Amino acid sequence: MRRSKRLVLLSKFLIENPNRIFTLKYFGEKYDAAKSSISEDLNIIKDAFYEAGEGILETIPGAAGGVRFRIKKPGEKIENFLSELCKILSDRSRIIPGGYLYMTDIIFSPEYSSKIGEIFAQIFVDKDPSCVLTVETKGIPLALMTAKALGVPLVVARRDSRVTEGPSVNISYVSGSSQRIQNMALPTRALSENERVLIIDDFMKAGGTARGMIELVRQFGAEVVGVAVLVATALPVEKLVKSYTSLLVLEKIDTERGEVNLRPVKFL
Amino acid sequence: MRRSKRLVLLSKFLIENPNRIFTLKYFGEKYDAAKSSISEDLNIIKDAFYEAGEGILETIPGAAGGVRFRIKKPGEKIENFLSELCKILSDRSRIIPGGYLYMTDIIFSPEYSSKIGEIFAQIFVDKDPSCVLTVETKGIPLALMTAKALGVPLVVARRDSRVTEGPSVNISYVSGSSQRIQNMALPTRALSENERVLIIDDFMKAGGTARGMIELVRQFGAEVVGVAVLVATALPVEKLVKSYTSLLVLEKIDTERGEVNLRPVKFL
Repeated sequence: MRRSKRLVLLSKFLIENPNRIFTLKYFGEKYDAAKSSISEDLNIIKDAFYEAGEGILETIPGAAGGVRFRIKKPGEKIENFLSELCKILSDRSRIIPGGYLYMTDIIFSPEYSSKIGEIFAQIFVDKDPSCVLTVETKGIPLALMTAKALGVPLVVARRDSRVTEGPSVNISYVSGSSQRIQNMALPTRALSENERVLIIDDFMKAGGTARGMIELVRQFGAEVVGVAVLVATALPVEKLVKSYTSLLVLEKIDTERGEVNLRPVKFL
Repeated sequence: MRRSKRLVLLSKFLIENPNRIFTLKYFGEKYDAAKSSISEDLNIIKDAFYEAGEGILETIPGAAGGVRFRIKKPGEKIENFLSELCKILSDRSRIIPGGYLYMTDIIFSPEYSSKIGEIFAQIFVDKDPSCVLTVETKGIPLALMTAKALGVPLVVARRDSRVTEGPSVNISYVSGSSQRIQNMALPTRALSENERVLIIDDFMKAGGTARGMIELVRQFGAEVVGVAVLVATALPVEKLVKSYTSLLVLEKIDTERGEVNLRPVKFL
C-alpha cells in the first residue's frame, strides 16, 4: 500500500480508537508495511493533528508501549465553541414556562454531544477513568460521547430496577432542588469494585442527583475520579457535591423579560 | 500545507461529517490549497476508503454539488460483525432469571453502539431520513450513533411529558407483550411536519412500542421512512408494525439448559 493511502486509513483508525495504545507491529501487520514506514506515517499524522489543534499522538515507551491518540484541543478553540453554545442556548425562544431552558435538541444532537464529550474527555483523561456513569435520560448522549472519546465503557443508572437487567443495587436519595425522594438503580453486573468512575450529567442545580450517583458508586466499592455537567446553576452556590466541573453556568432566567443569562466557565 | 498533512486532516473531517455535502471551494479555503490539489487529495482518500471497505466518497454534480462521504461497508464485514455480536450475546452468563438476555453493556458500549449505528445508517441512507427517533432509555445509544452516521438530529420520546421541555404531544398505547397501557410524550418543538423519521430501538417483541412511535410521528404530521431494531424475537411472527428491519433474531432462551439461540439476519 502506498504511503498516501496508509495515511488516510491510519488517521481513520486512530480517530476511531482514541486513548488506546497500539504497537507499531500491530499497524505494520494491519497495513502490510515495515515498522520504519509506519513510524514515518505516524510522525506525519502527529504533526498534522498537532498543528491543526486536533489532538496529540503520544509515544509510550517500554514493553507495553506504542502510540496513543488523545483528543486535545487548544483552550481558545474550546472557549469559542462554548461561547457559541451559550449564544444558541440563550435564545429567548428556549425559555419554557416555569423558568426552564429547552436544551434537549442540543444535548441529543450528535454534532454537539460529540464535541461536548470530547471536552469532558480532555479535562478528565489524566484521572485515568475506566468507565463513565450517568443516570437516565438526558445525560446519556453526553456520557456516551465522553466514553467514546476516552475509549471506555458507559454505565447507565436507571430510575427503577429492571427485570430485564437482573439483580441490582438500589439507592434512595433526596433531590436537592425538589426535596423529593428519588430512586436510582444499577445492575450488580454493571460495575466492579476496581473501576475508576467519571460521572457525567447534563444539568446540576443543587447536586442531589450527582450525590446519589457518588453514593451508588460507593455501594459497589468503586472510586469516583470526577463529576462533570454541561450546565450548573449559579445558585445555590453550595452544591451537595464537594467538587465538580461544569462547562457553562446558568446565572438566571428572566421569564418576564425573556432573558437568559448563561456563560462559559474559564477553566483552561 | 503539504499533501500528506492535508490527507490526514481531510480524512478526519470527512469521517466526522458523514453524509454531508462539501464543495471543493470550501476545502480549498479551509486548507489553503488550489481546488485541483484538493481534487487529487479527495481521489486518494476515495480509493483508500473504497479499497479498505470503509465507505464511499461520492461526487455530487451541479450547482449544489460537491463531495459526500458515506459509510458503506461490504456485506461480508457486516456479517462478520453481527456473527461476533451473536456469539458475545449468546453467552449463558447473560441469561437473566425470567428468560431475559442481558444486553445493556453492549448497547451502551461506545464501540458496539457506533458500529451498530453505522449499519443502520447504511441500510436506510437512501430513504433520506431527516432525523432519528427513539424512546427512552435503551434505544438512545444506538439511535444517537445512527443519527451521527447519517449526519441528522436525534429526537427522543419520553415515557412522561416533562415540565422542563414545555408543551408536548402525548399518546397512550397498549404494549404488545405485556398488554399494559403505556405512555409516550414528545415536546411539540422536537419534531415538525416535514420530517422524514427513521425509528430506531434496541429490542422488539410484539412491536407495540414501535407502533406507538409511528403513531406519535403521525400526530406531528411527519413521515416514517423506516423502523429498525437491533434484536427482534422470532415470536410472535406477526408484529404490530407492518414493516421493520432487525439485525439479529432471538429464537429462544432456554433458562433450564442455559442456552441462547440468537442469529444474524441475512439482509445484504
